[in-house]
Amino acid sequence: MAEDLASKENVEQLTGVFAAALTPMDDGLNVDHEAFAAHCSRLLDAGCHGLGVFGTTGEANSLSADERIVALEALVEGGVSGERLLPGTGSCALTEAVRLSRAALEVGAPGVLVLPPFYYKGVSDDGLFRFFAGLIERIADPRLRVYLYNFPQMTGVGISLPLIERLLEAYPGVIAGTKDSAGDWERIETLCHEFPGFRVFAGTERYLLDTLRHGGAGCISATVNVTSQLARQVHDAHEAGREGEAEALQGHLTELRDTIEAYPAIPALKSIMGRLTGEGVWRSLRPPLTNLDDEKADELLSRLRDLGLHREGP
Amino acid sequence: MAEDLASKENVEQLTGVFAAALTPMDDGLNVDHEAFAAHCSRLLDAGCHGLGVFGTTGEANSLSADERIVALEALVEGGVSGERLLPGTGSCALTEAVRLSRAALEVGAPGVLVLPPFYYKGVSDDGLFRFFAGLIERIADPRLRVYLYNFPQMTGVGISLPLIERLLEAYPGVIAGTKDSAGDWERIETLCHEFPGFRVFAGTERYLLDTLRHGGAGCISATVNVTSQLARQVHDAHEAGREGEAEALQGHLTELRDTIEAYPAIPALKSIMGRLTGEGVWRSLRPPLTNLDDEKADELLSRLRDLGLHREGP
Repeated sequence: MAEDLASKENVEQLTGVFAAALTPMDDGLNVDHEAFAAHCSRLLDAGCHGLGVFGTTGEANSLSADERIVALEALVEGGVSGERLLPGTGSCALTEAVRLSRAALEVGAPGVLVLPPFYYKGVSDDGLFRFFAGLIERIADPRLRVYLYNFPQMTGVGISLPLIERLLEAYPGVIAGTKDSAGDWERIETLCHEFPGFRVFAGTERYLLDTLRHGGAGCISATVNVTSQLARQVHDAHEAGREGEAEALQGHLTELRDTIEAYPAIPALKSIMGRLTGEGVWRSLRPPLTNLDDEKADELLSRLRDLGLHREGP
Repeated sequence: MAEDLASKENVEQLTGVFAAALTPMDDGLNVDHEAFAAHCSRLLDAGCHGLGVFGTTGEANSLSADERIVALEALVEGGVSGERLLPGTGSCALTEAVRLSRAALEVGAPGVLVLPPFYYKGVSDDGLFRFFAGLIERIADPRLRVYLYNFPQMTGVGISLPLIERLLEAYPGVIAGTKDSAGDWERIETLCHEFPGFRVFAGTERYLLDTLRHGGAGCISATVNVTSQLARQVHDAHEAGREGEAEALQGHLTELRDTIEAYPAIPALKSIMGRLTGEGVWRSLRPPLTNLDDEKADELLSRLRDLGLHREGP
């Protein structure tokens, strides 16, 4: 069964620097499809290999499944290639995760980034296995590539190494990789070495160079919304074997990351985008998130400019 | 604005013993609408004043919004009066909580039980206020009565007393009460005394009598799926001023609760229902939940029978 599900054809391997794209919204808190496509195009132009749309940073769980699907379709209609997207398609409801993942396949996404169901706590690996297995079996599409999204600080539900091993054994080729946002370098290192072929993305560009050095795929990060050029330079310097340069660039990238991390990430990033672009669509966050106050936003931007963040962003 | 939203007419006050109803599912993990209506009717016949459908116990977050709405409508078509229902309509997405709440109003539910958005952690009271305010303002229906569902062990997002106070001030008459599943008696006691008119339901029948004695509304509890007759007797004895009898009955009820609590609640309750009714629809749980194994289920049922749980259930 598992092998029938995995076809190697037509699915490009995902690799490199991915922004976990912000989702711009209008005053009514609806996704601004045009601004979203413009932002995603800008990120790709600035050097992102791909985009993790509808993740934590994209406020995906604050949108209904319908809103996510409509916004994804509009994004592709707006000129962003589905092949560059790794859409978040997790949901507490298996049926909804199936529906979202199918929509991602329909637009040509080479993978889907799937949270574990995150309402119930203290659930077993058996239960989580059943969720991911159910997802794969119900979709039953050889194009499907599942990236496991581990973010226990938000979900309260960790994806254990034994669970990953079990899923890889049951669904080789379908379980394709992970985004690990646990903030634990040792875990990322272990993932890179324990599971050959499993594509490991760090959830922060802080670990970009280290992840690449250990054979990982790259990073998918919120702050790459504003640091994509620099993050891409780190990647390219490493790729070209210019390790000294890569390290210096990584140092600078980490400084920017550190600076942003002192603020609540999503409000901070939306406020920076608003200031860099002058667009009003960055003022809106869906509850329960709230805007960064103006004073803090100005302070953050000024700190980032002192560190050399260019005006044009991202 | 707030006062326009609250109409006292036609909305019966919710009070008494509520089961947090289980949701029976077929082998394909679809809600079995017929079995659901039969179960809910049985609970009402057994003495429940009302039913908290689509709560934690009902695996609501494991269902899509569409599935929840279709199942709610089917329940009412299946003969269960919407006036006896307090449907869970929470969602991480404001737009979805609005849609679910409207569907509840359409079937005549006198209130909705609303979780805070539970994906993001460490969110502010301002952000949670915006969520509940947004819900009320978007629905803009004078029939709406919101019950705040506090279950920090699952959500990771607590509903603070200052937040309740602020919501009550902003939306008097609309913010109607709470189900508190934090498992903290002192909090329930405080809620009963601090906010007159605010209807407090304990999330466990362990606190049923105490809650009633402190002027609370009653309980909404998972285990009432199998203890409803006894829970109702506690309520009625207290109501009639037979406090000695109420206390003895509460002691028995608490013993049953303690016994079930030693097992994972939802799998345990579904296994008991399966054994009491002989119906196959109690074997299915949506992932990430998993069935109780047969041996444990038999052991639990035998313990409950030793404590006098009647064969017919619930």
